[in-house]
Order: sequence, then C-alpha cells, then structure tokens
Amino acid sequence: MRSFVDTTDFSKEELLDIINLGLVIKENLKQGYPLNVLYHKTLGMIFEQTSTRTRCSFETAMTQLGGHAQYLAPGQIQLGAHEDLRDTAHVLSRLVDILMARVNRHESIETLAREATVPVINGMSDYNHPTQEMGDVTTIFEHMPEGKTFEDLKIVFVGDSTQVCASLLMIVTKLGGHFVQFGPKGYQLGEKYLRVADKNCQESGGSYLITDNCDEALKDADFVYTDVWYGLYDKELSKDERMQIFYPKYQVTTEMLQKASPNVKFMHCLPATRGEEVTDEVMDGDHSIILDEAENRLTSIRALLVYFMGMKDITLEICNKNLGRK
Amino acid sequence: MRSFVDTTDFSKEELLDIINLGLVIKENLKQGYPLNVLYHKTLGMIFEQTSTRTRCSFETAMTQLGGHAQYLAPGQIQLGAHEDLRDTAHVLSRLVDILMARVNRHESIETLAREATVPVINGMSDYNHPTQEMGDVTTIFEHMPEGKTFEDLKIVFVGDSTQVCASLLMIVTKLGGHFVQFGPKGYQLGEKYLRVADKNCQESGGSYLITDNCDEALKDADFVYTDVWYGLYDKELSKDERMQIFYPKYQVTTEMLQKASPNVKFMHCLPATRGEEVTDEVMDGDHSIILDEAENRLTSIRALLVYFMGMKDITLEICNKNLGRK
Amino acid sequence: MRSFVDTTDFSKEELLDIINLGLVIKENLKQGYPLNVLYHKTLGMIFEQTSTRTRCSFETAMTQLGGHAQYLAPGQIQLGAHEDLRDTAHVLSRLVDILMARVNRHESIETLAREATVPVINGMSDYNHPTQEMGDVTTIFEHMPEGKTFEDLKIVFVGDSTQVCASLLMIVTKLGGHFVQFGPKGYQLGEKYLRVADKNCQESGGSYLITDNCDEALKDADFVYTDVWYGLYDKELSKDERMQIFYPKYQVTTEMLQKASPNVKFMHCLPATRGEEVTDEVMDGDHSIILDEAENRLTSIRALLVYFMGMKDITLEICNKNLGRK
Repeated sequence: MRSFVDTTDFSKEELLDIINLGLVIKENLKQGYPLNVLYHKTLGMIFEQTSTRTRCSFETAMTQLGGHAQYLAPGQIQLGAHEDLRDTAHVLSRLVDILMARVNRHESIETLAREATVPVINGMSDYNHPTQEMGDVTTIFEHMPEGKTFEDLKIVFVGDSTQVCASLLMIVTKLGGHFVQFGPKGYQLGEKYLRVADKNCQESGGSYLITDNCDEALKDADFVYTDVWYGLYDKELSKDERMQIFYPKYQVTTEMLQKASPNVKFMHCLPATRGEEVTDEVMDGDHSIILDEAENRLTSIRALLVYFMGMKDITLEICNKNLGRK
Repeated sequence: MRSFVDTTDFSKEELLDIINLGLVIKENLKQGYPLNVLYHKTLGMIFEQTSTRTRCSFETAMTQLGGHAQYLAPGQIQLGAHEDLRDTAHVLSRLVDILMARVNRHESIETLAREATVPVINGMSDYNHPTQEMGDVTTIFEHMPEGKTFEDLKIVFVGDSTQVCASLLMIVTKLGGHFVQFGPKGYQLGEKYLRVADKNCQESGGSYLITDNCDEALKDADFVYTDVWYGLYDKELSKDERMQIFYPKYQVTTEMLQKASPNVKFMHCLPATRGEEVTDEVMDGDHSIILDEAENRLTSIRALLVYFMGMKDITLEICNKNLGRK
Repeated sequence: MRSFVDTTDFSKEELLDIINLGLVIKENLKQGYPLNVLYHKTLGMIFEQTSTRTRCSFETAMTQLGGHAQYLAPGQIQLGAHEDLRDTAHVLSRLVDILMARVNRHESIETLAREATVPVINGMSDYNHPTQEMGDVTTIFEHMPEGKTFEDLKIVFVGDSTQVCASLLMIVTKLGGHFVQFGPKGYQLGEKYLRVADKNCQESGGSYLITDNCDEALKDADFVYTDVWYGLYDKELSKDERMQIFYPKYQVTTEMLQKASPNVKFMHCLPATRGEEVTDEVMDGDHSIILDEAENRLTSIRALLVYFMGMKDITLEICNKNLGRK
C-alpha cells in the first residue's frame, strides 16, 4: 500500500499507527526539537479547487519536516485537459518525491494513485476527505471524555451529507465508534457509503444511525459535528434553497447541544457559514474545539507525509529520543 | 505590541531599533554568513492585490532566515468572503507562525491583527504602507548627507497623496525630519494624516508643509520622492485625467531637481510610470537611489520578521559575533 | 557570459561541461548525498505562460540544492505592462539571486538578460527552448547506442517546426550530430534557424536535412522526436486544421519507427496529444524514453543553476568526493 486515497484501504491498526505518529511529531515540535526527515524532499500539490486549510497544512508540514511543497493552483495544472492524466502522473513522479491532490472527481485521484510511481495523498475529492478524517480522529483522541475509549463514543454529524459527513461515517465506524447523521431525507448518506460502514461495523463493533429525529440523534452525544449546507459539487444549493431545507431544524445551537452529553464537544471542518449551519454562540463557545481540529489537519498531514515517505520508524526513534521516552 | 499595522503604534526608539537590526542583518548576509533564526518557520502571505516587490521581499527574507513563505494569491483566499475574517485569523494562527497581508481595506488588516494569535505585518492597505516606510528610512540613513542627522533633513514628496505619500509623512515626522508634499489642491494629504503628523511633530520636533508652490517645496530638499498618479483605489484616474491634473507641473525632472540641494537624492517606491510622474533622465540619473530603496524593502522586512518573531536579541548576538563587533 | 538565453552563445565544450555537471549531480543525489551549494539562495521564476515540467523542475532543483524558487505566475507579474521591463529586471536583481523566465516574446528574455545584474535563464520563448535542449542531450547521452558517439547520431524530428524542433536543430548541429526535420512544406524550419545550423555544422562537422520524404528522413535514425501540432503562438491551429495538415503522414507510429534503426529511441518534450502526433503504442512502447527525458529537465536545470551561480567547481569537488571519484 503506497498511496492514501481512502481510509477503507487501511486496517484499524495502521490508521491508529499514523494517528499516533502524528501526536508524537506534534509533541516533538511543540518542545522545540527540529525534524529533518524529509530533508530537501519535494511534495507536489495539485489543487483543482482552492483550499486554505489543506494547502497551508501541507505546505507548513513540508517546511517543518525539512522539505518543500510546490503549489500547483487551479488553472496552473488541469488534470486530464492538456495531457492524458496518466502522462501527468508519470512525469510528476520523476520531478517530485510525493504528490497530493484535491480533485473534482474521485476518479482523478484514483488514476493518479494507480499511475504515479511516488506516493499520492488524497486532499479531498467529491467522494471523501481522508486527511480530514485523520485530523478529526486525532482531535477526538485529544478530547476523549474521561473514562471512555473510542468504542464508547457517540459522534453525531448534523446537516447535509457532504463528503466530510461521509468521511466521518467511514472513519468512526472503522475505529469502532458510534456514528449518527442527523439530517433531512434527501440529504442523508447514500447506499455506497452505508455499505462501507456496514462492513466496518461488522469488523469493529461500531454502529451507525441515519435519522431526522433530533432528540434521538443528540441523546448522549460526545461530539457534535457540522459542515456547510452548500451541497456537493453539481448539486450546489442557493442560499434560499438551503435555508428552506435545513433551517432552523439542523442549525447547531446552544439549545441543540443541551440535548447531548453535558461535556459534548463541537466540531466543524471549516470554513463555516455562521448563522446558517451553526450559531456564533456555538462556534465561539466553551464546547467548541474547532481550532484544535483545524490545527490537527497539520498534525495528521505531517504524519501521513512521513508515513508514506517510509520514514515512520526513524521519525519515531528521533522524536522519542528527543522527548526522553522509551 | 505584537503586530505591525501602523508605525504610529511604535515609539521612535523602537522603530530605530528595527531599522538598525535590518542594517546589521544586511551586513551579516553581505559578508556571507548564513542566518537560521527563523529555521523551519512559516510566514503566511495574504495578497488581496498582486505585488512584486513586497511579495518577493517577504519570500526572499524567509528563505534567507531559514524559513518559508506561503503565497496566498488574490483569488486563492478572499478575506471575509467564504468565511468570517475572524475565523480566517484564528485558523491561520494555528497553521503558520507569522502572517502578512496586503489588503484592500485597512479595516481588514486591523481585524487580522486583533484576532490572530500570531504576529501580523501590514504589507500595505488603502491607509498606509509601513514596510515601505521602514525600507525608505533605511535608505535615507544609508544616503545621509554628510554632516547631517535625520532631524536636519528636508524630504519632499511630489505628486498625488497616495498611501505611500501618507506613510512618508508619518514616518518622517515621527523621526523628527521635515516633510513636504508638493501636490495640487484636491490631491493633498487629508486631515486624518495631518492630525497624526501634528502629534508626531510635537513629540519629535519635526515639521511638515503641504503646498503647490514648487520653489518653496523644493528649496534645499535632501530627498525628493514620487509615486504614480493613479489615485487611490475607488478614485482611480484615467491616464488623460491624471495627465491633466499633474502634468507637467508635478513631473520630477532634472530641472525640478536643480531647485533642490545639489546632493539631492531621488526616491520612488516603484513601479514607476516613466514619462508621467518622472522622466527617464531622473530615474536613470546620478541622483537616483531607487534600486537601493527597492533592495531595502528586503532589508527592513527581514528585520520586521525577526523582531516580531521575538528573535531580535539572539539575531544581534549572532550577527555581531560573525562581524567581529562588540 | 552570465546568462543562458541561447545555446548558440556557448561553445560546444561549455555545453558539454554543463551536461556533465548535471550527470554528476544526478548521481550524487541518487546515491543519497545532499547538496547545499545554493543554500538559502532564491530563484525568481517568471512565467508568462503556465508550464508544469519547467516550473516543477526549477522548483525541485532549488529545493534539492538548498535554496528556494519563487513562482511568479502568469498574471502575477506582467513583463513590460505595469512597469518598464528594464525596471523589473533591475529591481528583481536586488531581491533574488538568479532569475528564469518563460516569455511570450524572445525579445523579453533578451532584455531581461541584458538588464539584470543576476544571471537569467531562458525557460522557453517563441524562438527557442534551451533548457529543453540541455535535458534532451543529457537523455541522448544516457541512451547512446553502443559503439557510437554523438557525431555518429541521426536525430529526426517529426512534425511541425515548433521552438522545440528549432532548439533540437541548433543543439544537435552544435554538438556535431546529424539532424533531420521530417515535416510538410509550410511547416518546416525557416531561414533564421538554418543560418544558425549552417554555422554550427561548419564548426562541428554536423549536418541537417529538411524533408517531407518519410523513408529518407527515418532511415537509420537513432532518435525520433516529436512535439504537438498546435503551431506557434499567433499562428495556432485548430484541431481540424492540424489534422488535415499533419495526419496521418506525420504521426509517429510503430510502422514509422520500423523504418528507423532497430534500436531507435522515441522522444517527446511533452505534453503530448496522444492520437495526434503520436500513438499510444509508441508513447508507452519499448522504444519510448519520454520519462527519462522528462526527468532530465531536472538534471540539466540543476546543472544550469549551479553553473550560472558560479558553483561548478565546488559542486564537482563535493560530488566527486561523495562518489569516491578522482
């Protein structure tokens, strides 16, 4: 396994390994120890859509690890336009050490990963958002309710079945947690995702529920997560349409959070449309861990870069030595 | 004081300290000694408008100091568009170590600086251009007429009251020099800037004069400075309009410079529209110090990065040791 | 000679020197030895047109050599638009250590090189593509038929007289090889290039032939090279037009290659329009060395950066020591 296109391609143990690697690197850097495990290495970043969080996280990660990230912006490279995507994959593999891509169509990241001779990381497609998954699980571990393990958690996604919602379903069930989507009919996760979740639950003991019943959804929730209501790609909604569909029932408010566990944490992949899917009060309130979540994009991306460049063992050795562990 | 939005927020001593720091780092690098005081650090650069000098200066500075600058180009990030500017500030503060922004509206840089938890440097707004101020003063110190101090200098800005003109007024009066704007009525610096200058002069002993009298303005001038005649932002002028207003009276020519001190130096923030605000003869002539001025954007920006990252003392120690000083 | 605008400005020995330097650095890096000969140096990259191969090669090269490349994308800097190109050259020379530019008009790169006070590398103009030349010759040396020297080679370009075709003519005749363009009348290399080739042949013993006779062109060919049929800049052709002119006679096919030497190698500067100038079978077949060719863009660009930054001798010393040579 050389590329990171879908967490479904990895075992629970492998994923936990990567998450742990991220936490160790994070601690190493917080303590002020430099790392040069990707010294003079180049990451090629292909963005078919703009992105602040994903792009900055990858670029900062490469700098912190001693390498450099090249930003190929929307319009500066067009996958499958001027040349066959296979040729792009083959050529870039000769010019950079590792690739990431944010693509319009999942098929593009699959082709890149299949054809490239360097590792490829999926920076979001219309199907999933696996680096977000890894950062989110990292954040959940950091904010684990006292006395609980991942298998005890109830994690509720409120709103539209975006690819972030789908990704949360897949990673939560993979790791044995309990996932709920609280969303209106017509905007609930579809069969292709539920089949993945079924398989995950069978192996992990996790569960999932798709519902439009607020009380049922929120009861005892440990984490409440939401995302914008724009809709996915070719089905994008106007502001009027989305307000009519989701508002006010699916807006995360202080009142909604009161139906959850008293220590519930609020998450959002950002950017948020304050006043639509979430109130200012929740975004800025005590339950909100959105900034830790944003920072952990960086945490998990550092780990993925190190892992897929084959530097896991040496990195752990260096960090543990720096931190006086083992 | 953590951010650099306006030189008015700083004491004369602090500003001179930063300028001195810049000169020491410049000498250190010219002598071939590397510096790594921002090792593996990331600067996030937000540009709402394109810019060559400012962008290249920041990016080169980060490389020379051991770090890296991320270029968020116009269109790649829109302040206050897809997300609340506060959220952008909060999130970027988790992903980079220091921020700079060139903004359309001064309010944006103020909000960024207030909300960010990392230092923020103003790379120009519609109100001021403080990194230009610092570079310009550096250049003035390097070209100080023999036997004079800053307090003796007469520094004349010719033409339209752009934000560079306003910035020059503010920094010159701050440091106790004598500023003149030679410009036509309707294009002279307004009250909000003159109130700042009044306060500066009271403290520093400097002075200012706004006039459309060429002889009075140019007499004994040590430095003559100009900028394009485009006008500011929403009041942009067509070529015909600006020629009618400013030409030929406010074009800096060899004849105009002959009214000044024999050793007068010519400055321009660049880019210039040769044939409008200045002639080829002046741009390329012996009085011109425009390239030293351009290079000192880099000089002052290195110093600002080091200063606001809290690395002043260690940097001075390293450089002075390298240079065999103290 | 400080800049690299045209291989015609250099002697055969100088060019072979640079090619050799590239091969030594390539071997050094393949063996895992880091190089820091451009430590903390900045390359300014100006692109008037987008480019993947050239941009990624320069950017990766700078990272591998310890420096950094700034990407000034189309639209972010406009040569000769907002300011006189001379001013751009003068100012950038103060802010970066070396420049490269991909320009619309050859005149722009000539002006940049003449005015800049740092070295300038031509990253392609409407006249020539010299970094491609250097990479291609590197690839030819790596795939030299057994028992042959460059002077024995027959190198055939098939199709339209693009600047890559012209560049191949110039470098092959410079180094004493035998060049053929197999292309239709009206799309054959013009006088200005043939005069350069005449002079080259006189000095080197090389030769050239321009023909629309396939059998004559391909007979005993050691290398067959093609490029897209788009036409040059202001004479760009529609798909219909170019198919009518070039198809099927000038499409490189397995059948066409059978007319050449049994060990013929197929080259393409890429990107390719599969199904137009070349078939899938040839692109992906055993004769194809297009990926080695793409990788050698990087090989030659590293060498050019080192050479024009004046670091050739120290680089050879370091690499040869690392590799246990001499």
